[in-house]
Amino acid sequence: MTDEIAARLAGQDIVLPKPAAPIAAYVPTVQVGNLLHISGQLPFKGEEIMTGRLGDDRDVAFGYEAARLCGIMLLAQINQALGSLHQVERVVKLGVFVNSAAGFTDQPKVANGASELMEQVFGEAGRHARSAVGVPTLPRGAAVEVDAVIAVKAG
Amino acid sequence: MTDEIAARLAGQDIVLPKPAAPIAAYVPTVQVGNLLHISGQLPFKGEEIMTGRLGDDRDVAFGYEAARLCGIMLLAQINQALGSLHQVERVVKLGVFVNSAAGFTDQPKVANGASELMEQVFGEAGRHARSAVGVPTLPRGAAVEVDAVIAVKAG
Amino acid sequence: MTDEIAARLAGQDIVLPKPAAPIAAYVPTVQVGNLLHISGQLPFKGEEIMTGRLGDDRDVAFGYEAARLCGIMLLAQINQALGSLHQVERVVKLGVFVNSAAGFTDQPKVANGASELMEQVFGEAGRHARSAVGVPTLPRGAAVEVDAVIAVKAG
Repeated sequence: MTDEIAARLAGQDIVLPKPAAPIAAYVPTVQVGNLLHISGQLPFKGEEIMTGRLGDDRDVAFGYEAARLCGIMLLAQINQALGSLHQVERVVKLGVFVNSAAGFTDQPKVANGASELMEQVFGEAGRHARSAVGVPTLPRGAAVEVDAVIAVKAG
Repeated sequence: MTDEIAARLAGQDIVLPKPAAPIAAYVPTVQVGNLLHISGQLPFKGEEIMTGRLGDDRDVAFGYEAARLCGIMLLAQINQALGSLHQVERVVKLGVFVNSAAGFTDQPKVANGASELMEQVFGEAGRHARSAVGVPTLPRGAAVEVDAVIAVKAG
Repeated sequence: MTDEIAARLAGQDIVLPKPAAPIAAYVPTVQVGNLLHISGQLPFKGEEIMTGRLGDDRDVAFGYEAARLCGIMLLAQINQALGSLHQVERVVKLGVFVNSAAGFTDQPKVANGASELMEQVFGEAGRHARSAVGVPTLPRGAAVEVDAVIAVKAG
């Protein structure tokens, strides 16, 4: 079998990182029935978190990349939880929190960094519902945080 | 059969709008099992979005109307996804994000614009769990954003 | 049968409060299938809400206690909805909103007040997915708000 998802990851030059350990008293993922709930992920670029505030010291391109990196960490968590990204039936919902100055209103353009990644990797199954909102600050000063709900293929 | 929901909509002078297209790379709704997840909706008044910040340039009455319009757009998305509002088994959860100045603490009164709508339209089945929080800014400067989880009647 | 959860509550000196009534037009919990969705809970200390903003007039220890009290109110709502905390199969997801000044980035340490409570009370079944974000203000000036999704044991 050709590994279509691996090919897509390679085509996007994406190497899944080591899944980030929770920075506190929780776990990265919980599956109940066929729904996998994934904790909010931060934008790791190597060992560093992409920090800063959109509309203040960061622009949309920076935010887009940060959201994409949150998405890549979601993929790493899914892969660890399910053993393979092929177990994803559907990306159901992304919750995108954008560290934003009060005048910044382009949260959707930032959130697209995670959303477009999901479609690049999973195709139609990557098309999801989403909310994107501004927040005044995030853990460790991160520019973006993204959590997710995923539907898992039946055993 | 009397169409009870249509009667309730008419009684509230509600005409469902054309469902708003996502302003980015995602879809309005995803159903998995009997749960319909609906993307965050903005308050469209005709073609215009109700913008502004509660506790700054907007008051509770404005916010209530904006939340109600987010709720009406949720109804339009549900109707489009399911073919009929009669397919709603239960409104499960609303997530309400209120564009708020730091001193504004009446998010629940604003969020009631969406919550009371659901009970007006669906009766007991419209009674839902909810979170309502302040945020410093929202997409396109919207005053309110509301997302939802809905339980769908079995086939 | 020894009531293990009651013993854990007693060991933590936790007395479940009277579940807070919704301060608006919604309900505390909705169960659909085996998932219980719980509305955002505020930090009641007796009759008073713990108010204030982290990084401004409140510190991490205050926020931790507030998050723990939100968690205790989640327990009270679960107990009321299910008749017993023993009906909890798994704590699936906590959504933690921390009233934060722009420079405060320790939301995870605050959120641990709720997260560690869940593990103290439910053991392994209390380990959950989580998102924790900063917000500029919350209902009634609360320092923290926490909502939850819980998996319920089969009838």
